[in-house]
Order: sequence, then C-alpha cells, then structure tokens
Amino acid sequence: MQGDIVPIGEARIGVTDWGLTHADCVYDVVPVWNGAFFRLSDYLARFETSLSAARMDVGMDRESMVAALQRMVATSGLRRAYVAMVGARGTPLIHGTRDPRACANHFYAWCVPYVHVIAPDIAEAGASVWVSDTTRRIPEDSVNPRAKNYHWGDFTAGLFEAKDRGFETVLLCDHSGHVTEGPGFNVFALKEQTLVTPDRNVLHGITRQTVIEMAQTAGLVVEERALRVEEVFDADEVMLSSSGGGVSPVTRLNDRVFGNGAPGPVSKDLRARYFELMEEPAYRTEILYGPADP
Amino acid sequence: MQGDIVPIGEARIGVTDWGLTHADCVYDVVPVWNGAFFRLSDYLARFETSLSAARMDVGMDRESMVAALQRMVATSGLRRAYVAMVGARGTPLIHGTRDPRACANHFYAWCVPYVHVIAPDIAEAGASVWVSDTTRRIPEDSVNPRAKNYHWGDFTAGLFEAKDRGFETVLLCDHSGHVTEGPGFNVFALKEQTLVTPDRNVLHGITRQTVIEMAQTAGLVVEERALRVEEVFDADEVMLSSSGGGVSPVTRLNDRVFGNGAPGPVSKDLRARYFELMEEPAYRTEILYGPADP
Repeated sequence: MQGDIVPIGEARIGVTDWGLTHADCVYDVVPVWNGAFFRLSDYLARFETSLSAARMDVGMDRESMVAALQRMVATSGLRRAYVAMVGARGTPLIHGTRDPRACANHFYAWCVPYVHVIAPDIAEAGASVWVSDTTRRIPEDSVNPRAKNYHWGDFTAGLFEAKDRGFETVLLCDHSGHVTEGPGFNVFALKEQTLVTPDRNVLHGITRQTVIEMAQTAGLVVEERALRVEEVFDADEVMLSSSGGGVSPVTRLNDRVFGNGAPGPVSKDLRARYFELMEEPAYRTEILYGPADP
Repeated sequence: MQGDIVPIGEARIGVTDWGLTHADCVYDVVPVWNGAFFRLSDYLARFETSLSAARMDVGMDRESMVAALQRMVATSGLRRAYVAMVGARGTPLIHGTRDPRACANHFYAWCVPYVHVIAPDIAEAGASVWVSDTTRRIPEDSVNPRAKNYHWGDFTAGLFEAKDRGFETVLLCDHSGHVTEGPGFNVFALKEQTLVTPDRNVLHGITRQTVIEMAQTAGLVVEERALRVEEVFDADEVMLSSSGGGVSPVTRLNDRVFGNGAPGPVSKDLRARYFELMEEPAYRTEILYGPADP
C-alpha cells in the first residue's frame, strides 16, 4: 500500500476512492505455486492491457511492479499464494468533479494463501454448476470483460441462486443464449475430440490460454467461438479453468449429470497437466525469499 | 466506521472486502441542505429496499441508522452535505469460500460538503450532455439498478467519451434504443405539456420522484414509460434530476441545441421549485448540531 508492506488486515482504501464508489478498478491475480510466480509476464501483460483499456496511469513500469510483488510475497513467506495487483481510479483532485481524467490513479497489491475457486476435494470429485436462467452476464458494450474488473453484481446474484439450490458455483449466459463465464473462471465444453470455449463476452483468462495450449498438445481440436448453452448441456465433458486451481471438471449442470457423476478422462488429464506445468521452470519466476523466511 | 467517527481521510475499507473486490455494496445518498436532511425517510426506505434486494443484513434498524447519520453530520458541522450510507458485503468468514451468504455484512457512512452532479453555474446556464452511441447501460437482468449500487463502469466509459468531446456529462441508452440514466441522475423529456421519464433500467431516484410530484403540482402530465432516444432529441426541453443539485436544464444533446442554448421555462421553474421544496419543514429532518458547532 503506497510503497509500504502492511498486514492484510491493515490494507485498506478510502471510502471515497472511485475504485470503490464507482467499482473503478482493474486488477489481476497471479498464482504463486511452490515458491514461484506462474506465467508472471503473461499476467503482467494482461494487467497492463487492463490499465490501458481503463485509461489509468499508475506511474509504474513493469520492472517496478515485479519488484513490488516480489518484495511483498517474500515478506509474507507464502509459498502458495493468491497475489492480487490493482489499479484504482483514486479520488478526484477537485472536490465534486465527475471527470474521471481528473483523478490520481494508484497501484496496490495484496496476497493471501492460495485460493481455489473450486475447493480441491470438490474439484477432484467434480463440481456442480448452476446455469442461471434469470441473471445474464453484463454485456461487453456495457463493461469490457477483457479489462479484468470488479463488476461482479451479476456473478453475486448468480452465486446466491446457485448456493440456494445446493450448487457449487454459477455459469452465466449472455442475452442471446450463449454461455459466457462464471465468478473467477472460464468454461470449456468437450464433444468428441473438440474442445470449445467462448471467445466473446468473457475474460481471456491466462489459465484459459494454458488449457488451450495443453489441449492442443494433447491432440485435441480447440475452437474459440460463440458457444450455445444447449451445446454445453449436450457435451461429453465440461470443465472450468481458473488461476485459482487450474482445471476443475464439472459433473453436474442443473439436472444434467455428466459421466455418471465422475470427472471425465480429458478433464482429469488436463487438470493433472496443469499442476505439472506449474512446476515447469520456463513458466516460473522464482521468489527471492530472504534467508530468515521459511 | 464501525461505530467511530473519523476524519474522511482515515475512513477506509479493507482491500479484500467484497464490497470492493466484487463491487458488492448498496448505498444511498441523502442531501443535507441548510442544516437538515431532505426527505430522509424516503432515502432510508430506499436504502432498506436496496439492502434487502442485495440480501444484506447490516444488523441495524432505521432508528440506529438515523442516530448514526445525525451524530456524524452534527460532528462534521456541515450545513450542506452529501451524506452517503453504505451496506457492504464484507469478507468471507472462511478463507477461500465463494459463498456470498458466508460474509459479515457491515454498515458505514460518510459525509463531505454538498456535491452538485452538475456544477451550479453550469446547471443555471444549461448543461451539455453526450448521448453515447457505443456504451450501453448495464441491463437490469445483469445488475438491478433499483438497488443503488457501485457498478459504474458503463458510466465511467461514457464520461470519458463525454469529457473528451467537451460535454459535461453522459446519458446512456439500453440495448434497444431507449434512454436510461446517467452518472448520478435521471432524465426527463418535455413535449408540450407532457413530461416523460424512463421507468425501466433506471434507479427510481428520490429527486426523480420529487420532480414528478412538482410537475404534477405545476399542472403537467407526467408519464413514466420507455422513452426512445429520438423522443429526447425531439423534445421541447430536457432536464436531469439528482439528489446532487436537484433539476439541471439541458441545453445541448450531442449536436442538438435546445432553446437557442438557454434553459427552457419549465426546467427553470422546476429547478427553482426544488430549492424551495428543500426548505419545506414537512420534508426536513433538522440536524441536532451541538452548541459548539458553527
């Protein structure tokens, strides 16, 4: 926070910051796995793209961001962490102005122990996902989903629906019957040897990209295109991708059960490959923990 | 903040609060004008409706909210203030859970000197408004606009468009060519003796309601209905309503100039009536400033 490292409970932003009052933040989350950032340059590149899309200048180049993240995670001592970097609009320099150009944008970062979007035991056994028929994903001509942002009201409404019905999480459709994404994940549908994931109205997840690359390596055909909700219900396998846990097989979508309730072979294979890939030196940026750290 | 009154610069919320990271807040803003809250019970009723819609329980009844707001404004000494009350989702009680039901919701409030959404000199002379043809208002089946919330990404994108083009503010349309609202205001179009304001995809503003009541008192026909963007360009007068400044006449909408660039008579009349109404004892809840206050 403003160059200082503080305990997470003391990391706060002002109640008048537009980052809060206008949800005017862009952010990214890079996983730390066994003492290294995974695909750090890819996450930072996307974060820079999000900052540009939001017309924010936080006054830091990539080198200084890496240094800040390195120092923060090293200080925390965490070997597996969820590391968030945030650009916030800030507070207007003139009281009462509504000009978003007149704000002092700022950067901050925080980390906590690694978060699995789907708890590991549930991901291993296969997750249940509610496809909402009432809440629609915010369209991309309202809020740009590729500039990773905090506009989660649709996800939150969907999560209430899902949890009330006993499902683990929710998947939202757009206004024309195509699936989009869920809270913290992209979705893939496998039919025979073809793996399809939506290309519009979604965040272009780094883990989504990793899954695409792993699937191609595994000999699958990958299609990035509009994906009708009926295709997902009709798929052989459905899986979710997230920086928080990699690949999570889905075994239930509303009243449709996949694979007799057990994760499918392709989902399981891609899930295993993801954890292997996180150990690949080419994708890792080792964290320089001090000698006093665990 | 958590029962304490602190300087605005020290009023902060945690960076992991879902109120921030999921824009999962509802809020309201009640104006304080010349030492009294205006229509306080109406604002509180709407705030309670927003809390219910968001399924938040902040553990306070109306009486304790009024007491908190009274004490805060009295302490500030402000006679004209923008007073925000906020319900925030809070942080999950279990690390890593994505269940919005598992959070400790909380209430906070803050106040600053009165904010005019349109600066008074500009409002007097007539505001210029950009009607975006690219950014669309977040639809109500994505995020409920009647639960007053911080999802402002569409407004912010629109404000950048407007400010870049030299306009004061922006008005957004929905996905089917109807006007909705702008950042902090509702819109009205007058044609002959009929005043029209959108009913769908908008916040039902308290000032919007005040304008409806004042217009009826003034003998106008008021219609709450879908309002096509062409009707607004074709109107005799256009005006904005906001708790931050009341009624603001619009003299320019993109390249359409109204009333030769001067505010129309009905807009001016309603603007004047609003400031008169704010002095009406029936609508005022006097603030009990201490003897030491100015």
